[in-house]
Amino acid sequence: MRAVDIILRKREGGELSREQISFFISRYAAGEIPDYQASALAMAVFFRGMNADETLALTEAMMRTGEVLDLSGLPGPRADKHSTGGVGDKTSLVLAPLAAACGVFVPMISGRGLGHTGGTLDKLESIPGFRVGLSLAEFHTVLRRSGLALIGQTPEIAPADRKLYALRDVTGTVESRPLIAASIMSKKMAEGIDALVLDVKTGDGAFMKALADSQALAQAMVGIGRGMGKKVAALITDMEQPLGRSVGNALEVVECIETLKGRGPKDLESLSLELAAWMLSLCGAADSLDAARAKVRDALSSGAGLRKFQEVIGLQGGDPRVCDDTSLLPRARETLELRAGADGRVAAIACRAVGHAGMLLGAGRETLESRIDPAVGLVLHKKVGDVVIKGEPLLTLHANDRGRLEQARAALEGAIRIAPEAPPATPLIRAVLD
Amino acid sequence: MRAVDIILRKREGGELSREQISFFISRYAAGEIPDYQASALAMAVFFRGMNADETLALTEAMMRTGEVLDLSGLPGPRADKHSTGGVGDKTSLVLAPLAAACGVFVPMISGRGLGHTGGTLDKLESIPGFRVGLSLAEFHTVLRRSGLALIGQTPEIAPADRKLYALRDVTGTVESRPLIAASIMSKKMAEGIDALVLDVKTGDGAFMKALADSQALAQAMVGIGRGMGKKVAALITDMEQPLGRSVGNALEVVECIETLKGRGPKDLESLSLELAAWMLSLCGAADSLDAARAKVRDALSSGAGLRKFQEVIGLQGGDPRVCDDTSLLPRARETLELRAGADGRVAAIACRAVGHAGMLLGAGRETLESRIDPAVGLVLHKKVGDVVIKGEPLLTLHANDRGRLEQARAALEGAIRIAPEAPPATPLIRAVLD
Repeated sequence: MRAVDIILRKREGGELSREQISFFISRYAAGEIPDYQASALAMAVFFRGMNADETLALTEAMMRTGEVLDLSGLPGPRADKHSTGGVGDKTSLVLAPLAAACGVFVPMISGRGLGHTGGTLDKLESIPGFRVGLSLAEFHTVLRRSGLALIGQTPEIAPADRKLYALRDVTGTVESRPLIAASIMSKKMAEGIDALVLDVKTGDGAFMKALADSQALAQAMVGIGRGMGKKVAALITDMEQPLGRSVGNALEVVECIETLKGRGPKDLESLSLELAAWMLSLCGAADSLDAARAKVRDALSSGAGLRKFQEVIGLQGGDPRVCDDTSLLPRARETLELRAGADGRVAAIACRAVGHAGMLLGAGRETLESRIDPAVGLVLHKKVGDVVIKGEPLLTLHANDRGRLEQARAALEGAIRIAPEAPPATPLIRAVLD
Repeated sequence: MRAVDIILRKREGGELSREQISFFISRYAAGEIPDYQASALAMAVFFRGMNADETLALTEAMMRTGEVLDLSGLPGPRADKHSTGGVGDKTSLVLAPLAAACGVFVPMISGRGLGHTGGTLDKLESIPGFRVGLSLAEFHTVLRRSGLALIGQTPEIAPADRKLYALRDVTGTVESRPLIAASIMSKKMAEGIDALVLDVKTGDGAFMKALADSQALAQAMVGIGRGMGKKVAALITDMEQPLGRSVGNALEVVECIETLKGRGPKDLESLSLELAAWMLSLCGAADSLDAARAKVRDALSSGAGLRKFQEVIGLQGGDPRVCDDTSLLPRARETLELRAGADGRVAAIACRAVGHAGMLLGAGRETLESRIDPAVGLVLHKKVGDVVIKGEPLLTLHANDRGRLEQARAALEGAIRIAPEAPPATPLIRAVLD
């Protein structure tokens, strides 16, 4: 078998066999197939696509280049959630403690933010002392003790994906549905979980702007998960405006703590509860989706979810007092309010622009090498449909640098559109694939 | 400017600017853009193509990574011919001496054979002592003295093309018209010539099997040459059967010497004369194409072409006596005749299969690393349209290895089809682009 023949077959629109895909990926991971052949194949896949069988084989091949966690020794079902990323998307920090409080083990391996989107690891690292870089042994220990553990991708998990993703980033081959689906699923399927809920974002602030594209990606990922014998469902959720009100790392942690106290924004609370309920339902921790919904709601109102979050913060080296006193989290030195220029209703919030403004403030990364500032970001005071009166604050910018503040302010010019009437409300959950 | 943005632009079907192409190629040649980005771009070009302006810019950028010969000091016009390659295609060894005998300087930089096709350098090297690896200084000296010089690609000429071609070969990106056209023309345009005749082969034994593809490639190359201020014409010529009767290096040299003596196969003679006439006509060495035809025919019948060939062989270290005594060329130890199984006419000769059989005998290369045997090959006794009688020899195999002989014999099974009637004759020159 030769790498070039595999490239040629895909270039000509042929289907690759499981053996061809496994050969290519295992040798690529081992450094026996060079980057220049992998990038040529990735570009051919960009143009020709991959069918469900090929995408499954690719996922398995990438997963098998690394460790696959065996969590079968844990005394309970294991489930996780994955989001394709958005602006203000912080459900992980709410739903993981809730699901753990309901008896589900949540071995969550997350990523960092890039561009206009945030990342769970960056949010967690805004908690003083919190360590996301646990070894796999420490990860096991925390998971067994608290029912959840929150870490970053380790070199042991799907190393081929890590290598291929870095290559795709510099060769213009990121935006390929099968490659995206296989990249996500190769890591998630290595977590040793029984069930996975996918939160596939759609709209202006998502990587996939069109609903059909988001659905196709969701379908591909659900197909992979089922092909590997897991329970998988996908919720396609709206990202036409930020989720919740806060964008920025410490600011989002505050909002999650508030949500775990029952005082969070309704959209964030309801989506977190629904995703957690799906986790419970899929992994068998509840008899039905409705029973699961009731269980997670109880975990929220009883404070069990908050206590779980506090516990895991402590176990991962963070200061658990932040749950009682959010002023222990980093705070920006300066704030600036943007105010409404007219009476009316919020007709639209340019979601990507808001995320981009957060990045400009220092809350996100322009490149993988950018350093982030945990304190900065912005807080929306109005969401789509809300009534506004001229002069009322629309959002507050939190900054540590005047120049960045000015850049972000400029980037938000016209981002919040006010009109006499708001458009009909978009449901937060656009579709469910189960 | 970033390489990845150039890849993305082409991936999305955009037109690359002259600056973008020049940036990418010059940095690639300098090792500042890695192979993995070049292969991704090549694959994007495979799918998206390049328009005439882009292809011209690519050619110029590749040419400018190396030396461009300045032959303006020579006391006469300079012209060359390039063929896209075929089976038994040996016109260079006939037309270059003829054109030189007519006062044209022919600085011919040729390639080696690959797969089912032969290469001029391999044929020349079957002449005892002949050196194709002259330095550029030696090349100048031979050219000035004899009016022609026949060498291989040197590291100084279009190094970006050499690097990119090697990369394309292992990344499934060879079969792209703009990349093929730019590769050929970047080397030819570096030769310091005023005029170029392209012999674009079409049919079973050519790289381009369909006439429309051959014409499109010819059009692309003619456009590049004219864009660079040269006189260029293209002849689209038939490769549905081998050209002449011999396939294999020393065997083809014998046939060329016979042709220069006026005793060669008619198809080889007429195509060589026509291509040489176009060279003379384009570069101004004759007032019209008809005047050019008369001049090259005179050079053939007077023996001036043969003497020129003999002269250049001597100047390049070869044994010039081969022109008088072809038994000085290497000869295979064994021969085997394939005979007609029926009476009739030759209806078709599977051209690629014949080239492949030559390769199996050792006359060509399976990979760039294969060693070739100058003595082996095959000689056709019948061409399409010829009358055959059952039991007559159709072709003779020349071999130095029993196993290879058997393989070649098997590969030729059914390659020469005999039918009661032959199809109407295909003209050798299918089209002319001038």
